[in-house]
Amino acid sequence: MNETPRYQPMDAMVYPRFSGIRTFMRLPHVTALEGVDFAIAGVPFDTGGTYRVGARFGPEGIRGASVLLRPYHPEHEIGIFDYCSGVDYGDLPVTPGYLPESHRQIEQAAAPLFQSSATPIFLGGDHSVSLPLLRAAAARYGPVALIQFDAHGDVWHGYFGGKDTHGTPFRRAIEEGLLDLSRSTQIGLRGSVYDANDIPLSRELGFQLITAVELHQMGIPAALDLIRRRTGNGPTYLTFDIDFVDPAYAPGTGTPEVGGFSGAHCLQLLRGLVGICFIGYDLVEVMPPYDPAGITSLLAANLVYEFIALEAVQRRNHEAQQHGSSQAP
Amino acid sequence: MNETPRYQPMDAMVYPRFSGIRTFMRLPHVTALEGVDFAIAGVPFDTGGTYRVGARFGPEGIRGASVLLRPYHPEHEIGIFDYCSGVDYGDLPVTPGYLPESHRQIEQAAAPLFQSSATPIFLGGDHSVSLPLLRAAAARYGPVALIQFDAHGDVWHGYFGGKDTHGTPFRRAIEEGLLDLSRSTQIGLRGSVYDANDIPLSRELGFQLITAVELHQMGIPAALDLIRRRTGNGPTYLTFDIDFVDPAYAPGTGTPEVGGFSGAHCLQLLRGLVGICFIGYDLVEVMPPYDPAGITSLLAANLVYEFIALEAVQRRNHEAQQHGSSQAP
Amino acid sequence: MNETPRYQPMDAMVYPRFSGIRTFMRLPHVTALEGVDFAIAGVPFDTGGTYRVGARFGPEGIRGASVLLRPYHPEHEIGIFDYCSGVDYGDLPVTPGYLPESHRQIEQAAAPLFQSSATPIFLGGDHSVSLPLLRAAAARYGPVALIQFDAHGDVWHGYFGGKDTHGTPFRRAIEEGLLDLSRSTQIGLRGSVYDANDIPLSRELGFQLITAVELHQMGIPAALDLIRRRTGNGPTYLTFDIDFVDPAYAPGTGTPEVGGFSGAHCLQLLRGLVGICFIGYDLVEVMPPYDPAGITSLLAANLVYEFIALEAVQRRNHEAQQHGSSQAP
Amino acid sequence: MNETPRYQPMDAMVYPRFSGIRTFMRLPHVTALEGVDFAIAGVPFDTGGTYRVGARFGPEGIRGASVLLRPYHPEHEIGIFDYCSGVDYGDLPVTPGYLPESHRQIEQAAAPLFQSSATPIFLGGDHSVSLPLLRAAAARYGPVALIQFDAHGDVWHGYFGGKDTHGTPFRRAIEEGLLDLSRSTQIGLRGSVYDANDIPLSRELGFQLITAVELHQMGIPAALDLIRRRTGNGPTYLTFDIDFVDPAYAPGTGTPEVGGFSGAHCLQLLRGLVGICFIGYDLVEVMPPYDPAGITSLLAANLVYEFIALEAVQRRNHEAQQHGSSQAP
Amino acid sequence: MNETPRYQPMDAMVYPRFSGIRTFMRLPHVTALEGVDFAIAGVPFDTGGTYRVGARFGPEGIRGASVLLRPYHPEHEIGIFDYCSGVDYGDLPVTPGYLPESHRQIEQAAAPLFQSSATPIFLGGDHSVSLPLLRAAAARYGPVALIQFDAHGDVWHGYFGGKDTHGTPFRRAIEEGLLDLSRSTQIGLRGSVYDANDIPLSRELGFQLITAVELHQMGIPAALDLIRRRTGNGPTYLTFDIDFVDPAYAPGTGTPEVGGFSGAHCLQLLRGLVGICFIGYDLVEVMPPYDPAGITSLLAANLVYEFIALEAVQRRNHEAQQHGSSQAP
Amino acid sequence: MNETPRYQPMDAMVYPRFSGIRTFMRLPHVTALEGVDFAIAGVPFDTGGTYRVGARFGPEGIRGASVLLRPYHPEHEIGIFDYCSGVDYGDLPVTPGYLPESHRQIEQAAAPLFQSSATPIFLGGDHSVSLPLLRAAAARYGPVALIQFDAHGDVWHGYFGGKDTHGTPFRRAIEEGLLDLSRSTQIGLRGSVYDANDIPLSRELGFQLITAVELHQMGIPAALDLIRRRTGNGPTYLTFDIDFVDPAYAPGTGTPEVGGFSGAHCLQLLRGLVGICFIGYDLVEVMPPYDPAGITSLLAANLVYEFIALEAVQRRNHEAQQHGSSQAP
Repeated sequence: MNETPRYQPMDAMVYPRFSGIRTFMRLPHVTALEGVDFAIAGVPFDTGGTYRVGARFGPEGIRGASVLLRPYHPEHEIGIFDYCSGVDYGDLPVTPGYLPESHRQIEQAAAPLFQSSATPIFLGGDHSVSLPLLRAAAARYGPVALIQFDAHGDVWHGYFGGKDTHGTPFRRAIEEGLLDLSRSTQIGLRGSVYDANDIPLSRELGFQLITAVELHQMGIPAALDLIRRRTGNGPTYLTFDIDFVDPAYAPGTGTPEVGGFSGAHCLQLLRGLVGICFIGYDLVEVMPPYDPAGITSLLAANLVYEFIALEAVQRRNHEAQQHGSSQAP
Repeated sequence: MNETPRYQPMDAMVYPRFSGIRTFMRLPHVTALEGVDFAIAGVPFDTGGTYRVGARFGPEGIRGASVLLRPYHPEHEIGIFDYCSGVDYGDLPVTPGYLPESHRQIEQAAAPLFQSSATPIFLGGDHSVSLPLLRAAAARYGPVALIQFDAHGDVWHGYFGGKDTHGTPFRRAIEEGLLDLSRSTQIGLRGSVYDANDIPLSRELGFQLITAVELHQMGIPAALDLIRRRTGNGPTYLTFDIDFVDPAYAPGTGTPEVGGFSGAHCLQLLRGLVGICFIGYDLVEVMPPYDPAGITSLLAANLVYEFIALEAVQRRNHEAQQHGSSQAP
Repeated sequence: MNETPRYQPMDAMVYPRFSGIRTFMRLPHVTALEGVDFAIAGVPFDTGGTYRVGARFGPEGIRGASVLLRPYHPEHEIGIFDYCSGVDYGDLPVTPGYLPESHRQIEQAAAPLFQSSATPIFLGGDHSVSLPLLRAAAARYGPVALIQFDAHGDVWHGYFGGKDTHGTPFRRAIEEGLLDLSRSTQIGLRGSVYDANDIPLSRELGFQLITAVELHQMGIPAALDLIRRRTGNGPTYLTFDIDFVDPAYAPGTGTPEVGGFSGAHCLQLLRGLVGICFIGYDLVEVMPPYDPAGITSLLAANLVYEFIALEAVQRRNHEAQQHGSSQAP
Repeated sequence: MNETPRYQPMDAMVYPRFSGIRTFMRLPHVTALEGVDFAIAGVPFDTGGTYRVGARFGPEGIRGASVLLRPYHPEHEIGIFDYCSGVDYGDLPVTPGYLPESHRQIEQAAAPLFQSSATPIFLGGDHSVSLPLLRAAAARYGPVALIQFDAHGDVWHGYFGGKDTHGTPFRRAIEEGLLDLSRSTQIGLRGSVYDANDIPLSRELGFQLITAVELHQMGIPAALDLIRRRTGNGPTYLTFDIDFVDPAYAPGTGTPEVGGFSGAHCLQLLRGLVGICFIGYDLVEVMPPYDPAGITSLLAANLVYEFIALEAVQRRNHEAQQHGSSQAP
Repeated sequence: MNETPRYQPMDAMVYPRFSGIRTFMRLPHVTALEGVDFAIAGVPFDTGGTYRVGARFGPEGIRGASVLLRPYHPEHEIGIFDYCSGVDYGDLPVTPGYLPESHRQIEQAAAPLFQSSATPIFLGGDHSVSLPLLRAAAARYGPVALIQFDAHGDVWHGYFGGKDTHGTPFRRAIEEGLLDLSRSTQIGLRGSVYDANDIPLSRELGFQLITAVELHQMGIPAALDLIRRRTGNGPTYLTFDIDFVDPAYAPGTGTPEVGGFSGAHCLQLLRGLVGICFIGYDLVEVMPPYDPAGITSLLAANLVYEFIALEAVQRRNHEAQQHGSSQAP
Repeated sequence: MNETPRYQPMDAMVYPRFSGIRTFMRLPHVTALEGVDFAIAGVPFDTGGTYRVGARFGPEGIRGASVLLRPYHPEHEIGIFDYCSGVDYGDLPVTPGYLPESHRQIEQAAAPLFQSSATPIFLGGDHSVSLPLLRAAAARYGPVALIQFDAHGDVWHGYFGGKDTHGTPFRRAIEEGLLDLSRSTQIGLRGSVYDANDIPLSRELGFQLITAVELHQMGIPAALDLIRRRTGNGPTYLTFDIDFVDPAYAPGTGTPEVGGFSGAHCLQLLRGLVGICFIGYDLVEVMPPYDPAGITSLLAANLVYEFIALEAVQRRNHEAQQHGSSQAP
């Protein structure tokens, strides 16, 4: 276990969890990245939304719900802040209503995060924001594996005349060579689609695809096995569209699809990804205006917490390896 | 595949799905039935409700959510409008507050739908509307099999002095000889009841009964097997009370019962009914005023979409058969 | 009184108001303009929104609430459809996420409405849509007077780098010569602003300005007097941003400002504009996701009804004049 | 001041107001009327509703909000329970879905209340319930004066074929001779109507009519003067449709009309009716499912409290008179 | 079957379920305990809440939803009121804002319930109320077994300086010797915690612990087997924190944790506890202000119904035993 | 005008208002007070609430809505940050469930704010928090004048046995000599009360009292005149209970009272207090869980903005005086 990390949450035994400024987990709001192991950054951009809009308030909603999170993860048996120093980096700048310009701003603002020693975790925003984030990731790591939890493939050619939307980011990412498709997986696709090619398209493009119906049938352990084998050890980016989850568990999203998964399913899936070499994460499409009971933001905050726990375990393992090798004669 | 159907939805690539008049799936609002394969018709009547009321706004709610539906069904691998022409027929006339008169109006207005070559799909309204709809169905087909998804049997003798309500339609239907009970099934019954006879009653009346507890235990494939064997090949009417679904997935209904089923369960069940000879469908008891996150209407719209897909497959099969026999030497 | 108009609402004595497809007032959905006196058209575009978004669902919300409207206006003592034939024209095409392209689409689609004998009434959408609508209006009429009910002047130079948003349409309109400022009025401005020039700016640009504080002080009759004298007899366009109204009466909007006006105030103001030569109207910034009790959409539908009544009175007056002159020897 | 009354609310200094069974004001639930000065009775019937329904939950909503009421009325300077003994009588029996039968049940169940020494105060339910209540009132008192607060006259001939609805009770009451029209007033009518006769109809039938626009113009003192002069000293029934109030103050109702009145207006109006000889009251059309913030039920509970205060003052005056005359030599 | 019980619900065939005063199940509100087999009592205290508050309205919410419950339980095949007489005892007195004083009040007011022949069922309030309830239980029975359904162990030493909260009652109960830990079980614990000791702590203190992850893995029958074996035949108290349930099914609670259980899971678990010797029950942490669709209160009412059914079966068994032994020669 | 202040909000032209960490007005979160002119501090304590609770989320709600505020106040014609440097100080520590301890914490934490050159503005929390805040104020200034906007006097002797609650702070403050009653005013009291002494009590204690009915009658200018004359030039504390406002404008509060005031009324009142020597402000009783449309938090944020504007004007006047005197020969 390393020394006390530089940045950790407010102490809930001194300041009750309902108090204080709503940063993620009430971590310090810091924009310098020295001594930071993970950084939460909002990307409040939703101009790419083709049905409902309002994901620009996603970061606010997730931060508000995140104050319920506590520092020890009992399933991974790890105290997050024994291994990680974490901050809330604030939000990346965007220009509402202007997608190309905003994508440039997001890519530029995300770059230092990917270049730093911190692992960035982004809170969307609509799914279009994954494209500039992947651009920034690939600038550091080259093509990365993608693990995409999503009800939709988001690999359309375009929409309304060849434009970018939240339905196209991964098509663009493939075209730009940002993804290592041989290591990438899409999971959770379901619902009615526009034509017969929509589902095969993901496979044709090179993704391993596990549809929702397939996942319901094979069960989570089998799916985890497929994902882990596919992903291997290289740098990997995880993108989680909250519409992977069933509307009963996550009504507050842009294009909800029935027949999805429960919160418990999500936890089991994310915990099963331990050991994969993640270099960044995003959680997108949370829309507080459509979430009257707040359960979407709450689940999203918990999923982000699972991302953080994956980071903590990764650092524990790394430390153990170093300790082991340093002890070697 | 037949030629371009006469009626299909607006093109979402030209008109975004959030735009336009809210017909079901943004189909044309047409009241002539020539060249129509399926017709959606609202039955905004809720005077039969014995607890909550408001199902008169069910058709509006379901239509509003239906704009999210797309034309290709990936599990049945079928483009709906490659095989079907569909319309929104509007609402049948009713007289709020006057049940017998409204039932007469509904039966009379539904008759031409059942008499036409289109398969009608009705959006309730409370469950009392199934009675006049079955009257209209039986006038064309004679006694029909009933597959009833429901938390309640709705076979009470009466309520408050022998009257019609949403708890009595199938008792009346049996008395009038509208049902072929030897081919009929009720599925999903659960919750506290008024007395010891309530559950046995369905069996005594002649239904095959699969209670919610039984369905949870046997699983969906076993239940589908029971239903399909029971139903056989004759004309069949499907009625789906949204309270079959658990309140977490469908809070917006009149007499919610805990311990129900998920959206994914419903999809699996309905998809498993492919090949049954349906001559009509209804989906009832959706109450938008009790549905703050809109998930009940969204699920209902998707269940109606499954009805439509069953129709499309039926027509594809029929076409294939005709094609096969015409090719025979 | 003229002969029976071609288009009028469904008869609520036959079809209860909660039934049927949700066109505005349950008018026929018609896209041919012959024999039409007023046409309601949605403009579901909200990419120009700088704070909350969701006005793309404004037309749906207003149409849903409009079924409560009845055909006789007791204060103007006029049966609307004794003098007017009206239709719901549906929605103009837009491309969500693409403002300049959408503005071109809107202008192009609005042009035939302004060129026809029908008076168009548009349902936004965010306030940016007024710019292409004014372009289409000016193409027919030349510079028009503007009467703008609004909590904000919407005359910023730009926002985030010179771009179009819902805060800039009237600056653009002035630059393009679409407005006759000598006849134009802004009314209702209030709330904190970005700098000292914001309020004077409207006056410097040439508007007659009546701020909210001034309106509270002078009272409605005095304000009507100012507006009527300013507007005169030329062609006039009325734009009503629902945030003119206080958030207690209209919470469902994009940038609500406290200290506004009541529904009764709005009715009195709009009724007092009778006799002005309106050539088009819009009502913008209604956001159903922020309107849990539905009162914003309800008020908006009623304000649109007041626009329609102004049209009906205008036609009655015109008829009376013609009748008078034709009777002259 | 008389001796301690038999029935009064739970003591909020011992049992906090959020605790206990939700009777009105936490009064004892008693169905014997001996020693009772006022009795609150629910009439949870809403089959007469022609647009929204759900007023059957009105009594529950009003009772829930009523726990905030305290026993001393500072404007009338009276301790309610110094002069009154009050109970919650529970709900009158009704048969949902069956209007004529329910009206018979209501009339029959209301009769003992009107025949007793207690003044009954009814919580609707839709406005159709006023008809059987007036029948029961007239059976005791003969034709009574009516003071009707309402956005709608509710004097239609019929609706959908001559039937009873919440739009017809007072037409029926007139036909049956239940009202002394020479002493009756309707106040608050507004909004669009079906035809030119709707507003004049109230006057032709014999009511004094004060429309909403007139009330806004003349002010409350002038209106009170008109009402008081008209009503005189005979037995009077007060019916208050919550849609008299503006939707901003009372969104939870069946046919909301914009341009109405505030809560403060209502209090001033009701307090100004002191001294009129009321023999019964009802408050109708509260619909909790459409009242997300609970303000409609809260206002309704306060208006009922004003009814109770009128009763208390009436009894204080009566006591003072008796005391005065008994002291006379 | 015994003679007609003294107290049972209103007859829903005479008084529709939406009518009448909201006692639990519309049972008589009675505070004498003679002839009573089970008594429902509210404990509207929430000063112990450390995150959200509002459980003081829990009893109101649960009572409101309970009117949907009917008297026959089809899975246990028992008519509740054939074996039980039940009442709504009202609420126990509390002093909001004063925890120690309220705990004294609660203990004192609960004592006569535990001393009587009735089995008490308490509706919280926050989980801190279980402590005084257990004190009252142990005063009658000595140390009791505890079966605790909960997402949290609630066995912290303290919070904010050694104080009582809803996170500490069972630690206090252990210290005071109120529990027979050798027979006690905690089930459902999950979510992030404050440190590594939180989960082991329950086991160290002596509880049998079944975490949520363990329960998801082993399944309900295995868990029931563990609980039943542990509990044995002695006096047992059941406490059910509604946060055992997943937020999708029960959003209206104080510290929701994702990854929980469905309503159907709860029913199966509670039904499997038949035969255990329960001497009291509580259901806590229901918060109506966070329950916009009312599904939390509805589920809670149904869980209380399962408690009642366990009581009825226990009494049926007891009767059968007595009958059997009395028949013995 | 002084030089650029040290602390001001994020620039909305660079970072859209929906982005970033939710401090008040997106001011820097700073806990050092050097160079600070006003400091916003949350007091998320609600254990003193006697009906609804949840004001602990008041600061979060107000901060969330405050991002809509802009830096220039057009009525006072002042750029706030031309004269003021402002920060969000975060929340004061509290212990939920423990009133006396929390009051000590609040007083202690507020002391450095009152001792500094910054003017503190507190966001409640329930009204009980005003007591420790006044203690801290009086420690610096001696007895201060109080201007209290409130529907309730909050001067009860006690509640449930002599304890502190949100209904007693000002009685305690008087007893402790914290107030200069000869300069103090209560305004807005209304609604039913517990007994005849409640309203006179405020006057007997020494307050100038303007009830809601009196304020409605006299109008705002007359009331302002009374307040200003009473207050004079000494140090003054302003406390604003949001229930001063009508529930239509502010439903999200603990003990709403109908018959209150509009947002426009509040603005006019607060703007009319310019020139009074305020040494601190609080705004209390905002409860987001009861505020589904967010209008209560929005209004509260705007009222706090008016406090800030009063500060800015005070500092401009002070500067002008200094400038004037320094220019004197």
